Amino acid sequence: MTDRTIKHGDFPAGEKNGGFDVLYHNMKHGQLATKELAEFVRERAAVEETYSKSMSKLAKMASNGSQLGTFAPMWDVFRVSSDKLALCHLELMKKMNDLIRDINKYGDEQVKTHRKTKEEMVGTVEAVQALQVQSGHLQKSKEGYHTKCLELDRLRKEGAPQKELEKAELKSKKAAESFALYIEKYNRVGGEFEQKMSESAQRFQEIEEAHLRQMKQLIKSYSHSIEDTHVQVGQVHEEFKQNVENIGIDILIQRFTEQKGTGKERPASVGFEEYMAALTPEGGKKTRAKAFRIPGLGKRDKEPDSTDSAVPEALNSPLEVDDEGFVIRADNTQNDILSFLSI
Amino acid sequence: MTDRTIKHGDFPAGEKNGGFDVLYHNMKHGQLATKELAEFVRERAAVEETYSKSMSKLAKMASNGSQLGTFAPMWDVFRVSSDKLALCHLELMKKMNDLIRDINKYGDEQVKTHRKTKEEMVGTVEAVQALQVQSGHLQKSKEGYHTKCLELDRLRKEGAPQKELEKAELKSKKAAESFALYIEKYNRVGGEFEQKMSESAQRFQEIEEAHLRQMKQLIKSYSHSIEDTHVQVGQVHEEFKQNVENIGIDILIQRFTEQKGTGKERPASVGFEEYMAALTPEGGKKTRAKAFRIPGLGKRDKEPDSTDSAVPEALNSPLEVDDEGFVIRADNTQNDILSFLSI
Repeated sequence: MTDRTIKHGDFPAGEKNGGFDVLYHNMKHGQLATKELAEFVRERAAVEETYSKSMSKLAKMASNGSQLGTFAPMWDVFRVSSDKLALCHLELMKKMNDLIRDINKYGDEQVKTHRKTKEEMVGTVEAVQALQVQSGHLQKSKEGYHTKCLELDRLRKEGAPQKELEKAELKSKKAAESFALYIEKYNRVGGEFEQKMSESAQRFQEIEEAHLRQMKQLIKSYSHSIEDTHVQVGQVHEEFKQNVENIGIDILIQRFTEQKGTGKERPASVGFEEYMAALTPEGGKKTRAKAFRIPGLGKRDKEPDSTDSAVPEALNSPLEVDDEGFVIRADNTQNDILSFLSI
Repeated sequence: MTDRTIKHGDFPAGEKNGGFDVLYHNMKHGQLATKELAEFVRERAAVEETYSKSMSKLAKMASNGSQLGTFAPMWDVFRVSSDKLALCHLELMKKMNDLIRDINKYGDEQVKTHRKTKEEMVGTVEAVQALQVQSGHLQKSKEGYHTKCLELDRLRKEGAPQKELEKAELKSKKAAESFALYIEKYNRVGGEFEQKMSESAQRFQEIEEAHLRQMKQLIKSYSHSIEDTHVQVGQVHEEFKQNVENIGIDILIQRFTEQKGTGKERPASVGFEEYMAALTPEGGKKTRAKAFRIPGLGKRDKEPDSTDSAVPEALNSPLEVDDEGFVIRADNTQNDILSFLSI
């Protein structure tokens, strides 16, 4: 008798009929998988929240960028972009939190299904146990019968007395009957085991397929949310690029001169005769605006005096941005870079 | 005499000829802008580093996902994806650090340019100061002349003695001569101021344009790096989706049965006669593999015994992933879901 024969005889359906346990525990591991998925998504939500907060911090940094100098309006572009990125990742965090709720909801349903399944499979558990019990009996009675046969064999070879032989034959016969009985019982229980086990395995497979389908659905939802955010982030970045492009160097210089310009007039030459005219009572009114000027010089600006009116106005108008966060490009027709030159 | 006339007389080129100061300080603010841009990019680099570390943590979390149950292989997909995301953001951090070096390098050049510009503009500073000084003299002599004229006027109206009138006329004449002299001086200094100031304003404009061009170039580099990372992240996500898609429910169940299956045989019925045959010395060898089996039952598997050989082999082979991180899809021809049923 080899190991292999013993094995087949003792464990016809896996080591100690362990198949049921394997399948049952696998089902229960499904609950662990659900919990772990929820934890993973929770961690991802936390990561996105942190990123969102960092982006808000960056936006604040941009809004604290120096308002002095020609570069100043660019900080608004950085601020708008960082603020929007913060929002994108905050939204992703919210979607992850919604997903966690869905996962937990499924987890609750899963627990219920498993509890119900356990109840339904009581019969299979009993069949497995019965088979194990009968397998033990079968083994024992097989060994008993084997011993008796060997004993009978030995007595025959030794030429033992007839009475002893008959006694041994009777024992062997009884052992054979008992063995045959256990074989019958074992086969009956085995048949039941096979049917129950087959049904349960089918049920386990259905549960497992439904579980994996659900898990993949949840992963798909995770995936979609991340994809949406990715598209949004791409748009925010496209806007950023466009805004940087739109604020040309000429516009930055123009904005600076509008805010900080000290005037557009060149120093006028002063003429004595003109001054004299200004002193006469009537002339004082007539030539007031032209005093100290030689005609044709120092009268370059046709626009209203920018020194007095333009400064407060310009200070009150930060870079104009439309609903989409795009910078409204200044009208080129009123582009007078010259003003930089004429202080 | 109105405020406006005084203003034009006193400050022909902005309040106290402040235009030069405004332009000079604006140039210096360019250094601040460069520093602030470097700080902003440094903060962004830090944000990306943190995100990268968080993704590595998520990857570790995925690799610690339970290896029990049918869902187990999915954790590998999460791990690979999170690891790759960590790499993408780490690379962005590195690019940001490279950019900071570029910004600082430009900042150093900027300081040198400004220092040189300051030296070149000493003449303009002197012209501004000279104009301010002469403007003061002009104002004073104008007031002096004015006073003398009013005095002479008053004496004439009062019918003052001729001697007094002559004295006043002389004073007025001298004041007029002095005023005319200051007018001449003022006009000369004003001409110099205009020329120097025009040259300097031109130079300031060139410096400012070059500065903004450089800053926009640096922002473009920032923008490109972020864009590259965005594309990479998109690819990683596309892979993730594909990998999730590729690991079908059937594959997960198949992998599970390969690893955890307890065998593919149904329990064989046991026959007494067969057992007897197995007991005979010659039969023991011949029918060894068939012991305890009724022909045609319990002999379903044509493959090598999976209980003994398949388990360790399967345990040693985690989900196969190719160079790109894609899961190598199991060949459908060897798809035997049945094995789940036959324990």
